[in-house]
Amino acid sequence: MKQLFVVGAGPGDESWITPAASQAIQASSDLVAYGLYLELLAQQVSGKVHHELPLGAETERAELALNLAASGRTTALISSGDIGIYAMATLVFELLDQQLQGRRDHPEWLDVEIEVIPGISAMQAGASRVGAMLGHDFCTISLSDLLTPWETIVKRIECAAAGDFVVSFYNPVSRKRNWQLNHARDLLLQQRPATTPVLIGRQLTRSDEQIRITTLAELDAADVDMFTLVSVGNSESRHIINGTREWVYTPRGYSRKLTT
Amino acid sequence: MKQLFVVGAGPGDESWITPAASQAIQASSDLVAYGLYLELLAQQVSGKVHHELPLGAETERAELALNLAASGRTTALISSGDIGIYAMATLVFELLDQQLQGRRDHPEWLDVEIEVIPGISAMQAGASRVGAMLGHDFCTISLSDLLTPWETIVKRIECAAAGDFVVSFYNPVSRKRNWQLNHARDLLLQQRPATTPVLIGRQLTRSDEQIRITTLAELDAADVDMFTLVSVGNSESRHIINGTREWVYTPRGYSRKLTT
Repeated sequence: MKQLFVVGAGPGDESWITPAASQAIQASSDLVAYGLYLELLAQQVSGKVHHELPLGAETERAELALNLAASGRTTALISSGDIGIYAMATLVFELLDQQLQGRRDHPEWLDVEIEVIPGISAMQAGASRVGAMLGHDFCTISLSDLLTPWETIVKRIECAAAGDFVVSFYNPVSRKRNWQLNHARDLLLQQRPATTPVLIGRQLTRSDEQIRITTLAELDAADVDMFTLVSVGNSESRHIINGTREWVYTPRGYSRKLTT
Repeated sequence: MKQLFVVGAGPGDESWITPAASQAIQASSDLVAYGLYLELLAQQVSGKVHHELPLGAETERAELALNLAASGRTTALISSGDIGIYAMATLVFELLDQQLQGRRDHPEWLDVEIEVIPGISAMQAGASRVGAMLGHDFCTISLSDLLTPWETIVKRIECAAAGDFVVSFYNPVSRKRNWQLNHARDLLLQQRPATTPVLIGRQLTRSDEQIRITTLAELDAADVDMFTLVSVGNSESRHIINGTREWVYTPRGYSRKLTT
């Protein structure tokens, strides 16, 4: 059987990788990933053939993984977080789709058995670090306008604001792009209190993890980099302080039927 | 140290529970959960004191967990999926908040060290089973109107439709409630093609897992029960068929810059 595992390795901490993901990596002879992820997985990936391609070479990475698997080498395509959320899994199926439409010349891809194994995504890591920020309806929005027109992203932010969803921003900034986050903040401020709690979570679950809780009014792209998740509470999210510990939670509903 | 672990055990398959979650369960003397979840975790929970409370007794379960931990017993409050997503974690912090406001009489709760450990949520399990349905911006909406007014839920569905988010419906039906899902479908149909792919995933990752891919027009609450996740694609989600395998993926963006 020609096998490709498409594996989410979680945010960073090795104890947050599911056994299913670890087993898929162990069963593979070849690993395809952005180099940094393989470093985080150091203990799990020794003795494997590593295929490292730089950031930006996403299509090439998915093609390589399909080619390796089609050649008979059991292969794991790995990304951090959940590989199904803003990550490589969708590209694998986009390539498969193109082949099915006759727009690629790789009929051998169609013989590859594909198994996708999800992982803990950044929004979940961030929410858990500060309590229960995703306790009620939420959405995710990528602020990268590389593949999505900015007008589409604006529309989505406006809808998230109107619907009072907790919002997690992925790709909040990049090396070349940092104005979108402040623009998004201003759009949310039109429909949500200035005091709405905001989580700024950097390098979540890694040794240099930094967690900061601020407010929507004080959110500033200058405090955010490529390794940061930004989550904005809904209008009922609460920031509470118990001695030296701070928490943010979003209640389960709006009616507050909980008896006191 | 008085310790409460708040643990998400994933959708069901034991190989989808993170080592961090397993370690927290192992470190605990007392486990608080809905009985069914403990059955799924059979191998991990032997030798522990089990505190099973029925569905509906959520507040009591969170109180019990805080009380046990405050009494010095290391305790794990467990739910399936991600305990931070429509689950028990937020209730723990709601109780803590009430105590901080003086609306409860449990000052001992404030001395409990709380650690939240997320798990793989149903939307992730479902998306991975059919490929990469959450490949771009998505949201989750609970259709339970127990704590949220139905008008608020309707507004949120309309905003999700207007923003073209992939939508995962949690609590799509209950024993007493089943009309909301068809109403939600009709709202989405006003702004999304009838052919939009829909995933109906029942008992995800469990031995009796059932996966069905249908269209938005054909989605019917009669095919859905309490153990089912329903995810609706966005306007660009694609349903593809490769021999005996079917997949649904949502492309990464809208501009389709991928070269062919």
